[in-house]
Amino acid sequence: MWLRNCWYVIAWEHEIPADGFVARTVLGEPLLVYRTAAGRLAVLEDRCCHRQAPLSKGRREGDCIRCGYHGLKFDADGACVEVPGMEHPPQAARVKTYPVAERNKWVFVWMGDAARADLAMLPDNFSCNAADWHYQPGYMHYETPYLLICDNLLDFSHLSYVHEKTLGGSTAIALARPSIEAVTEPGQRGLRVSRHVPNVPAPPYYSKIKQLSTNVDRWFIYDFLLPGTLLMRSGGRPVADAPDNLRHAVQLHSCQTLTPETATTTHYFFQQAYQADAPDAGVTAGIYQSLIAAFNEDRDMITAQQRNLMSAPGAPMLPLYMDSALVQFRRLVEAEAVAEATAEAGGQGGG
Amino acid sequence: MWLRNCWYVIAWEHEIPADGFVARTVLGEPLLVYRTAAGRLAVLEDRCCHRQAPLSKGRREGDCIRCGYHGLKFDADGACVEVPGMEHPPQAARVKTYPVAERNKWVFVWMGDAARADLAMLPDNFSCNAADWHYQPGYMHYETPYLLICDNLLDFSHLSYVHEKTLGGSTAIALARPSIEAVTEPGQRGLRVSRHVPNVPAPPYYSKIKQLSTNVDRWFIYDFLLPGTLLMRSGGRPVADAPDNLRHAVQLHSCQTLTPETATTTHYFFQQAYQADAPDAGVTAGIYQSLIAAFNEDRDMITAQQRNLMSAPGAPMLPLYMDSALVQFRRLVEAEAVAEATAEAGGQGGG
Amino acid sequence: MWLRNCWYVIAWEHEIPADGFVARTVLGEPLLVYRTAAGRLAVLEDRCCHRQAPLSKGRREGDCIRCGYHGLKFDADGACVEVPGMEHPPQAARVKTYPVAERNKWVFVWMGDAARADLAMLPDNFSCNAADWHYQPGYMHYETPYLLICDNLLDFSHLSYVHEKTLGGSTAIALARPSIEAVTEPGQRGLRVSRHVPNVPAPPYYSKIKQLSTNVDRWFIYDFLLPGTLLMRSGGRPVADAPDNLRHAVQLHSCQTLTPETATTTHYFFQQAYQADAPDAGVTAGIYQSLIAAFNEDRDMITAQQRNLMSAPGAPMLPLYMDSALVQFRRLVEAEAVAEATAEAGGQGGG
Repeated sequence: MWLRNCWYVIAWEHEIPADGFVARTVLGEPLLVYRTAAGRLAVLEDRCCHRQAPLSKGRREGDCIRCGYHGLKFDADGACVEVPGMEHPPQAARVKTYPVAERNKWVFVWMGDAARADLAMLPDNFSCNAADWHYQPGYMHYETPYLLICDNLLDFSHLSYVHEKTLGGSTAIALARPSIEAVTEPGQRGLRVSRHVPNVPAPPYYSKIKQLSTNVDRWFIYDFLLPGTLLMRSGGRPVADAPDNLRHAVQLHSCQTLTPETATTTHYFFQQAYQADAPDAGVTAGIYQSLIAAFNEDRDMITAQQRNLMSAPGAPMLPLYMDSALVQFRRLVEAEAVAEATAEAGGQGGG
Repeated sequence: MWLRNCWYVIAWEHEIPADGFVARTVLGEPLLVYRTAAGRLAVLEDRCCHRQAPLSKGRREGDCIRCGYHGLKFDADGACVEVPGMEHPPQAARVKTYPVAERNKWVFVWMGDAARADLAMLPDNFSCNAADWHYQPGYMHYETPYLLICDNLLDFSHLSYVHEKTLGGSTAIALARPSIEAVTEPGQRGLRVSRHVPNVPAPPYYSKIKQLSTNVDRWFIYDFLLPGTLLMRSGGRPVADAPDNLRHAVQLHSCQTLTPETATTTHYFFQQAYQADAPDAGVTAGIYQSLIAAFNEDRDMITAQQRNLMSAPGAPMLPLYMDSALVQFRRLVEAEAVAEATAEAGGQGGG
Repeated sequence: MWLRNCWYVIAWEHEIPADGFVARTVLGEPLLVYRTAAGRLAVLEDRCCHRQAPLSKGRREGDCIRCGYHGLKFDADGACVEVPGMEHPPQAARVKTYPVAERNKWVFVWMGDAARADLAMLPDNFSCNAADWHYQPGYMHYETPYLLICDNLLDFSHLSYVHEKTLGGSTAIALARPSIEAVTEPGQRGLRVSRHVPNVPAPPYYSKIKQLSTNVDRWFIYDFLLPGTLLMRSGGRPVADAPDNLRHAVQLHSCQTLTPETATTTHYFFQQAYQADAPDAGVTAGIYQSLIAAFNEDRDMITAQQRNLMSAPGAPMLPLYMDSALVQFRRLVEAEAVAEATAEAGGQGGG
């Protein structure tokens, strides 16, 4: 189950070469994304309208894509501008295009009704593109449905077990009962999950960002937004400091987003940024390496879970307290999917 | 097609570490087997009742298994004894357990109605655990249904062809027409297949077990028992000796058993033991190596047969005289499967 | 969709060893082809009638094939001539045989009604076996349905794009509009596709076959015959020479044929021969290498196309002018398939 009327990240901005393109499948549809000389982004279906060869087996020609099979050439609007051997390409020669948007180094594609594409629905991934936030961008491919990964990100009780060896000292975090509210930001649908963990030792890498000589009060506050984006503020403040005094605080912001590739595979784009006047290459690399190590542990567990789910489809799951956020999020996805199906049925009836 | 109300070997005893567990799928169900400090064996479904993660991705904690995803802890009865962050785990938090038994170094699991689990149904694999019988235990994995391997073991006419190069001089054995009777041991259902091959040269390795200077009379008498266990006495006696004089005889006993992993894959546990006051490491290794070589030949052939069967499901097979035992055994399996289905339907109606 | 009442190439003659056999699947049926001592070719189903083991896991014994599982022995007519342990094999012990033919180094099998097998339907692949035509034989395996490869061979407009770097200077060829007629040779069903390209530079390798100091008039005339065989005359003549003056002309003949292995995989047998009194090893190798390079490019593209087709079965294709021949050929296949189905239904009704 997935939603169509929403923005999915298809690529990090830096993945798109000036004179080439990126081919990536989203919601089972093969897509090709590129940027014209004037800087405009275009997403085309990666499927020539003639014999369905992938356009990505062809080549960029200026602002166009030339199919590598029989040479049809398409512009950034999907119109065929050349059929070799014909004076004028037929009007019907077009490939599908998709609304595309760019925000803070994430490139988004809209997979549903183009008329509903709404820039206000883009998530606020500000730390991906801010002078005082520093990170190394990440990408990972999953052989599992995206919702299992959402589940994982919506329930931190796994920290003590999946990440026992990589994220030491996290039991207090794992057990901290979060508050869960609806997100109220305009254009956004999702949950806000907040955890506060008072008076715990700071993790070792904190000291590389800020000088800390005491225990800290830590916080983890994230919005988990449809279709599958986590935006998390976290950090720690010396216990002696007042809540609004962030002078000695370590402040982090993480942007993570899941894009279904197919019903059973997923793209995962992520970063974990820290706030500092200037980047420290060691800190950046260290945080990135920790992230990769931990995310590999998640992927290993979720992939094993998926194998079990496949071996007995429909077997029941026992709901526990820690599932509260993930259950709410799955209900949100389901309700939106029903709303989309209803809207589509209504639209078809009216049109 | 497989039976549920019977014992399947899930592991050799030595495969189960004192402080760990073995994960193995039987009849399509992922299982985990371990031994408590007090020595009790436990078989749990390898599937956490919470989010269905495999428990085998977690760890042993004393006599319990801790799920590696969210930390639920289960005891050897399948009861959840801890949910991190909850004072008392809910009653419903349980994983399925299976009756388990141990006999002569084989560890068995009962996959059907636990109320019917009956130790009297365990096969008599005595040579796996006897002071004067010596062997090296074997395990092999097949990418074919278990019944094709039963077929193979129930028809020795394949010896001259599949094992032409590894079991030389076996034509007389292959062509010896067996007598086939029903097994009458209490608790056992199956066939007894008996072959006597008089006055043939002894195979070379016999001389390492006993001094033999003449031809021998050989015998091969095996019970093939539901669900898929072969117990075979075989051997050779100098032609001059009377049938009841085994002083100069080579005596062998083989225990082999097939456990369906899935509908199309199989676990194969086996040994071929020889009787002697003391083991001879060279003889033990030599017999084991011959077995492995021959069983690889079987697997190669049966895997090729399975490919052909898959490419034309339902294509007819021409019955020949040598199929007598396998046809009878397949009928036995079918009759028991029908009986199980009937019993289950009746049980459901009554309950 | 494929036809049954036609000849398919199953092997190059040289692939069949004097004392062995070749196993190859055609139209989803596992086959085994061999040649008796007297030189007769035989094609047997590669499936023992007893337990369906592949006969190809067994061995040649004189003019017979012995199954490697239980030793049944079959002659070149598919009759079982020995069941080990039985005095007389049962009459019903037979494996299916197929009509087989040989022409100019191609070995053909007839997959349909044997009564309709007609040698007049063999294609005229003369250059595979002529004293003044020289080539190196080729074979390639495709993971795509055969009709996609027919499409490719029936539309040369792909030359400029798929083979941009390997077959330079081909734009004029790609864009030359062919004439398309029905083939009228007796026994043959198919299309004749003719292209003439006047006054173009000769490709570099021409000069190794004939001395050429001027531009040439080139021609490409091929019959594309059911079930999937291309027979192409091509060449070039100095522009100054009259059309019937071939003294200074380079003359080529290519034989290529597609045999469905399964619904989604294909055997491809091919050669490109040049006419000369004597072979030139360098020219032969050079032409072969060019062919392999170009056919790898085709396979790469068609395999990618197939992935897209699988991801959205039934998605429409936009017909363009260059599809004329392939559309006509697909109609021919479809019409013959309908005729076969009708004939079979009628035959069943009448018989």
